[in-house]
Amino acid sequence: MKIEIGTRIFEVDSAGATLAELMRRLGFSLDLPCNGRGSCGKCKAQVFGSLSELTDAERNHLSEEEIGSGFRLACQVRPLGDCSVKSYPSVRETSLNILVDGARPDSALRPDGGSQDLAAPLVSKHAIQVPEPSMQDQRYYLDRVLDTLETEAGVALADRVHASRELLLSLQRSIEECRGKVTVAHARDRIISVEPGDTALQHYGVAFDVGTTTVVGYLVDLRTGVQLATASCTNPQVAHGADLVSRITFASSSEGSREVLRFEILSALNELIQELVSKAGVSHRHIYHAVIAGNTCMTHMLLGLETSTLATMPYVGLLGRSYHDEATRMGLELRSGALVSVLPNIGGFVGSDTIAGVIASELDRRAGTSLLLDLGTNGELVLSSGGRLLACSTAAGPAFEGAHVVQGMRGTKGAIESVTINGEEVEFRVIGGGKPVGICGSGLVQAVSELLRVGIVDVTGRLRGPGELEEHIGPGLVQRVQEDSRGRRFVLFSDSQTEVCLYQSDIRELQLAKGAISAGFSVLCKRMGVSCSNIDTVLLAGAFGNYVDKAAAVRIGMLPGVDENKIVPLGNAAGTGARMALASEAALSRAEQLARRITYVELGNDPGFQDEFMEAMVFPSCVAD
Amino acid sequence: MKIEIGTRIFEVDSAGATLAELMRRLGFSLDLPCNGRGSCGKCKAQVFGSLSELTDAERNHLSEEEIGSGFRLACQVRPLGDCSVKSYPSVRETSLNILVDGARPDSALRPDGGSQDLAAPLVSKHAIQVPEPSMQDQRYYLDRVLDTLETEAGVALADRVHASRELLLSLQRSIEECRGKVTVAHARDRIISVEPGDTALQHYGVAFDVGTTTVVGYLVDLRTGVQLATASCTNPQVAHGADLVSRITFASSSEGSREVLRFEILSALNELIQELVSKAGVSHRHIYHAVIAGNTCMTHMLLGLETSTLATMPYVGLLGRSYHDEATRMGLELRSGALVSVLPNIGGFVGSDTIAGVIASELDRRAGTSLLLDLGTNGELVLSSGGRLLACSTAAGPAFEGAHVVQGMRGTKGAIESVTINGEEVEFRVIGGGKPVGICGSGLVQAVSELLRVGIVDVTGRLRGPGELEEHIGPGLVQRVQEDSRGRRFVLFSDSQTEVCLYQSDIRELQLAKGAISAGFSVLCKRMGVSCSNIDTVLLAGAFGNYVDKAAAVRIGMLPGVDENKIVPLGNAAGTGARMALASEAALSRAEQLARRITYVELGNDPGFQDEFMEAMVFPSCVAD
Repeated sequence: MKIEIGTRIFEVDSAGATLAELMRRLGFSLDLPCNGRGSCGKCKAQVFGSLSELTDAERNHLSEEEIGSGFRLACQVRPLGDCSVKSYPSVRETSLNILVDGARPDSALRPDGGSQDLAAPLVSKHAIQVPEPSMQDQRYYLDRVLDTLETEAGVALADRVHASRELLLSLQRSIEECRGKVTVAHARDRIISVEPGDTALQHYGVAFDVGTTTVVGYLVDLRTGVQLATASCTNPQVAHGADLVSRITFASSSEGSREVLRFEILSALNELIQELVSKAGVSHRHIYHAVIAGNTCMTHMLLGLETSTLATMPYVGLLGRSYHDEATRMGLELRSGALVSVLPNIGGFVGSDTIAGVIASELDRRAGTSLLLDLGTNGELVLSSGGRLLACSTAAGPAFEGAHVVQGMRGTKGAIESVTINGEEVEFRVIGGGKPVGICGSGLVQAVSELLRVGIVDVTGRLRGPGELEEHIGPGLVQRVQEDSRGRRFVLFSDSQTEVCLYQSDIRELQLAKGAISAGFSVLCKRMGVSCSNIDTVLLAGAFGNYVDKAAAVRIGMLPGVDENKIVPLGNAAGTGARMALASEAALSRAEQLARRITYVELGNDPGFQDEFMEAMVFPSCVAD
Repeated sequence: MKIEIGTRIFEVDSAGATLAELMRRLGFSLDLPCNGRGSCGKCKAQVFGSLSELTDAERNHLSEEEIGSGFRLACQVRPLGDCSVKSYPSVRETSLNILVDGARPDSALRPDGGSQDLAAPLVSKHAIQVPEPSMQDQRYYLDRVLDTLETEAGVALADRVHASRELLLSLQRSIEECRGKVTVAHARDRIISVEPGDTALQHYGVAFDVGTTTVVGYLVDLRTGVQLATASCTNPQVAHGADLVSRITFASSSEGSREVLRFEILSALNELIQELVSKAGVSHRHIYHAVIAGNTCMTHMLLGLETSTLATMPYVGLLGRSYHDEATRMGLELRSGALVSVLPNIGGFVGSDTIAGVIASELDRRAGTSLLLDLGTNGELVLSSGGRLLACSTAAGPAFEGAHVVQGMRGTKGAIESVTINGEEVEFRVIGGGKPVGICGSGLVQAVSELLRVGIVDVTGRLRGPGELEEHIGPGLVQRVQEDSRGRRFVLFSDSQTEVCLYQSDIRELQLAKGAISAGFSVLCKRMGVSCSNIDTVLLAGAFGNYVDKAAAVRIGMLPGVDENKIVPLGNAAGTGARMALASEAALSRAEQLARRITYVELGNDPGFQDEFMEAMVFPSCVAD
């Protein structure tokens, strides 16, 4: 069926989809505040033609007069045949979608002077009408395409432009198929495809954040920067160990094991691509560029490179620069000619996921002193001050993901994610509601913070025995301090079937983790020549940052002591940064410049680190609340 | 064994080679006026060490005192063990070797303002000492190489530099093999190889001129621009027809025939590469770049592209731009990472061999009006005037290569290459001496010119019968005019076994050929708005130009009527131009710019061409000598 939108007509074949879905697939940026649930009534569109019946949501939000004038809700109405859209709920600032989607729509994420980053992607696409050859116009077919690209679209590619043999082999046929109407996908120095007809609206890219544990993929409309679909999966390499060191050991274990690891990541990426195109209903042939971010070890493994030198002194990897290749050569199942860009690494294990985080948070463009903290399986820190950028990594993550914590678990259903002690009552919130089955990172941080505040845990991290507790602590709390074969513990919840407790050893794990982070930013501040109290803003990347109680994190000394409103959670900043580098060549270039601009600090080599670490394991003594 | 030259020491293992040969392989440019035959005595070198006995040539050219001081002739003396070269016969202007070698050392070939073309090649090579990683220096291996390239060699590559996965896989091993001493071969945006040790002197490239009939290869030292070896072979595609149209017909005959033609050229190029490295005694691994020139049809067939559109109206090919690829992907058997550049085409059949000819002849930089004429299987013409350049092609070649001429042959042993009528005597020169067996192009031109001069052939090209000849023509000549079943003929030579004759039909063939050429430059002059009499210089590319008698060619109207000393033979200008583009990136870029600057003129489409052609078939009437 045909849909006329404004002055254009589109052929679509997605029977049953809502108008909003169809328009998104065609590349329109719609404003859907309630995300298409029909609850806000904001997505009013004037539509005529063969349409589905009015829904209850539409009757609620549209006046009789509006209904009479052909208004519907785009998220509700389903075109059944040819129709014509006269007005639709367009987004005014399309460009901001890059950031709004996926990262929290926090003002801190909005680029101030950063509008140049919202410019053209590396791969552009233009529909042109190539003139037919004649005795008066004998230009070669490729020149004919390039000249027309210049005259019709104003795009002058490099003199030494690259066109593959495969492309040249089908060039004439592609031009003749629709009588000279073709769409050219190109980077500055390379023609990626010449497709028959006008396919300019089908212009997609994929971005990936390859984490040690999780791989996340994003399908992006390169015309608008809008994210069309996301998909994620567990990194199949976990079969060789949850942590990087186990995988590096496996990689060195035999001749072919580096290739095994490479194919595992590639197969995950290829499956995500399938899932993304199927979710968004776009063709695989219209994906022209993939941008990949990951920690140094992951990007090395993705390329099948040696990683043993990363794990042994002096911890030196192979590849700091960005890596560009044709997707098919690298093993990504994309169309012939599609490009792939692996973002550059910073140093040691601090890789392109951190650079992507810097891009997403605009850390390098902020005034004052700011700290970016990405807590995943590893912890990466970047300190920015006066135009300088220092980065380090700490082995801080596992405790926050539930590892080495007796009843620890990831932030999934059944996890205690928040704990408050109110008088003698212990109140907590369980993810998904119901009875708790364990405790996740944010719950751990807040539980310890509360126990510190009331004096059940002392500044050294010791869980006091019932006899040592001060008098003002009532019996309701005292009875929760118990001992079992695992040592002293504080019971957060118990009934006849279940107990969820915090053990002395869990507090020690948290001390190690928060000590490592705290020592990390202390060393960075010292190197930078600023005091930790000078830090103006703390940017928290990673899911943990979205859920942790900021006050509690400050109280236990895991974050610098800044105002709560100066602590900004970013969500998956690495994914957001990778999507930005996909949607904008300027952002891609900025990532490449940042790799050389950020100085990597090896904590193991810092003379003061061990002292800082020992000191930082102690909790701050001023815990007044 | 070791050879010390100046302040450097080289390890060589070419026992039995002369010092001159060894030094050439090491990249030194030696001045060997007699080309190493020992006859000029100019290559005096002061050498000490284990050397061969004095030869007779050395005793002839060296004084007792010189012998006592350690002087030898570099082309005669053979190092037998370690030795030390204190002085050697170096070439003062190394850069000019590019042109001197292969093309005639004609002053017209020397670039006037063209010194920028003698700059660095696309691929450079630098030996560097990469510092070892340490806890104080944890840069990634690739960054370590790139940084050192910048600090030690002053070479800053692009931020978005390309390094292949294959290179990265062996990078660490390459660096460690010689304790950090590596040699990097690179283009501006790409690292081609990182080799252990100092191999900066082993830096070679190959250039090819792919002709319809012959393929010529050149091995060039990219450090100096010196040509180290040449090799040539017949284009294996001749099996599918001597001319382009037969091959295009074959290419369209079945599904796989384009691939057959592609593999045939590739196999010829690969065999030439083998021959070149073996002749020069260099390693195949040290060839980093290949530059290829050829006519449009040959470059299309080399890439396996469709050529049928070149042979049918409106005669439009696919690829005008230069084509760059990795050699191994294109099918050239060079080292992994080596680059190949196919020079750009101009229009129709006028291809990159003509562009290479323009580069070699500096046609685009000449003052006044100049004509470049390349006579091979086809004839290509380029007219340059006031900064404008026009090109066309004519089906002019075959007669000059012996085709369609009754006793025609190529310019090989036994061919009459020159004819003079002296009174009643017919004098001629036979290639290789001895009895003639046929006549080649230059002989044909001169024979007709002489017959015109004495009046045996009239201006319409008619061979007069014995009864029609004027009285002053003596009986010795008259009796040579005979008839047989093939028609009227002029006997150039006869004895009891052999006759070599020029037939009326041969003169008609020549008239067609010279008419096409003459009409070609007439049309170009008209389009340019100049008169043919304004042409200041005629540059003759191709072997034919080296042998044709200039005066005779002017007399029959095949060349514009300019002074003989303004007619400059260039030899294989296409090969020279390809070598220049190999030795200098500036020349490569100039070729790319020229492809867009030169306007292609389709003669078949020119309203005046047929008239010009008919007129030009007549010989000039003023044949006074």
